[in-house]
Amino acid sequence: MQSSVFGIGKELVSAQIKDNNAYYIASKLNEIGVENKFIVFLDDDLDDIAQTLNYFMNKTPLIITTGGLGPTFDDLTLQAVALATGEELILNQKCLSEIEFFYEKLYNEGKIADKNLNVNRQKMAYVPKNAILLKNSVGAACGVYLRKNDCHIFCLPGVPNEMQTMFEDKVEPTLKSIIEPIFTQSQTIECSINDESLLAFISSETTQKTHVYAKTLPTSFSSHTMYVRFTAKAPTKEEAKYKLAEAITFFKDRLSRF
Amino acid sequence: MQSSVFGIGKELVSAQIKDNNAYYIASKLNEIGVENKFIVFLDDDLDDIAQTLNYFMNKTPLIITTGGLGPTFDDLTLQAVALATGEELILNQKCLSEIEFFYEKLYNEGKIADKNLNVNRQKMAYVPKNAILLKNSVGAACGVYLRKNDCHIFCLPGVPNEMQTMFEDKVEPTLKSIIEPIFTQSQTIECSINDESLLAFISSETTQKTHVYAKTLPTSFSSHTMYVRFTAKAPTKEEAKYKLAEAITFFKDRLSRF
Repeated sequence: MQSSVFGIGKELVSAQIKDNNAYYIASKLNEIGVENKFIVFLDDDLDDIAQTLNYFMNKTPLIITTGGLGPTFDDLTLQAVALATGEELILNQKCLSEIEFFYEKLYNEGKIADKNLNVNRQKMAYVPKNAILLKNSVGAACGVYLRKNDCHIFCLPGVPNEMQTMFEDKVEPTLKSIIEPIFTQSQTIECSINDESLLAFISSETTQKTHVYAKTLPTSFSSHTMYVRFTAKAPTKEEAKYKLAEAITFFKDRLSRF
Repeated sequence: MQSSVFGIGKELVSAQIKDNNAYYIASKLNEIGVENKFIVFLDDDLDDIAQTLNYFMNKTPLIITTGGLGPTFDDLTLQAVALATGEELILNQKCLSEIEFFYEKLYNEGKIADKNLNVNRQKMAYVPKNAILLKNSVGAACGVYLRKNDCHIFCLPGVPNEMQTMFEDKVEPTLKSIIEPIFTQSQTIECSINDESLLAFISSETTQKTHVYAKTLPTSFSSHTMYVRFTAKAPTKEEAKYKLAEAITFFKDRLSRF
């Protein structure tokens, strides 16, 4: 299965903060056998988010978003998902209860001054009609899992520890039940040629013949060596490791004849 | 002017490396008065790159790509740009001379073993027909500036020091001549409420009334304070600073009454 990861928020595209969420998710997906194809950061603009979700729903059968689930006016992810999927956005009573319980607990612990379910708190309970809620064990906003035609969409919070907990507790088990995993194994080797344009002959041949992706990692020409990263994919980790070893042997053999 | 920044390469979407190029460009764009709206990382897939470029060409009048200009089989950016813009991909003699000169120089310095213009080196000289070359003063591959209808497309190398040098020497001066700058000024303040759902009333009102974007930065409820970032935009830095100060005053006034 292939995926797209979205990070939603003006702070990401304007370089006010450096994202780590998408990188975390892409690396987790890789571990469980999902091949990530796109990472997209967007501003808090309803139409842009909805249209871009729609575009990538036609590219990959799995989309994971982070950010835009909170109580402020610029948190628009679930509205955008509703627009992109043609789902109605409805007040989800279960979600509302979760939110109510969350603020009541904080109030009772003396952490906030007001426990009333104001409109901003209520806003977080509006979710696409057929969405499955993903409980947030750290923060207020529930996550959402929605299946639309052949596309699986997960919407997670942007606060890193809320997102990571939800990914591990909710997303990972669900994904493991729906995917046919493709495992990736990588290894980087140093080789005695420093020229990418020469190595390209061998890396291209290796990729074609072994179906293991050989990627040269260009640095400067002041070194006399260069690194090449091999990435193998297979339905099991063992097969991927085996293919990887075979490809490196093939590559080294070609290199020695060069 | 609004922009999209592309990072092209499997290593970016598979979390094998953490990108810094897009972050660098978005922050530079911000400095010179361009509002970045999208950051997109893509795999080395010709159709995906071409189609996605096409999609974002209809979203923003400026696109800057990094990566995919090198000599290896998986460097596909210029082919994709040609597809996306309907331009012919042609062997550019000036580009070929630059590449020839680059390798000859390296050879004469004893840094590489072969100075011949092999097919992989020649490959880098195939550029869209109406493209303007951007000289690479650090590496082999030329950058490209192409104007298609109302969209300005810059393609830069992925190696960070090549990209940064080309951005500063070539892209920045060109951009300054074509944009009507919108300058951004930001300031973050700490305030005495720790609850985003309460602050949302004030941040929303501030944004609406002052047109300065007030973004709450949620942390945990264990602190009794919270940060809010204000971002003002204007045709000059001075105006942006003035708007920023006004908005913060407005926000603090509302906060004191809460």
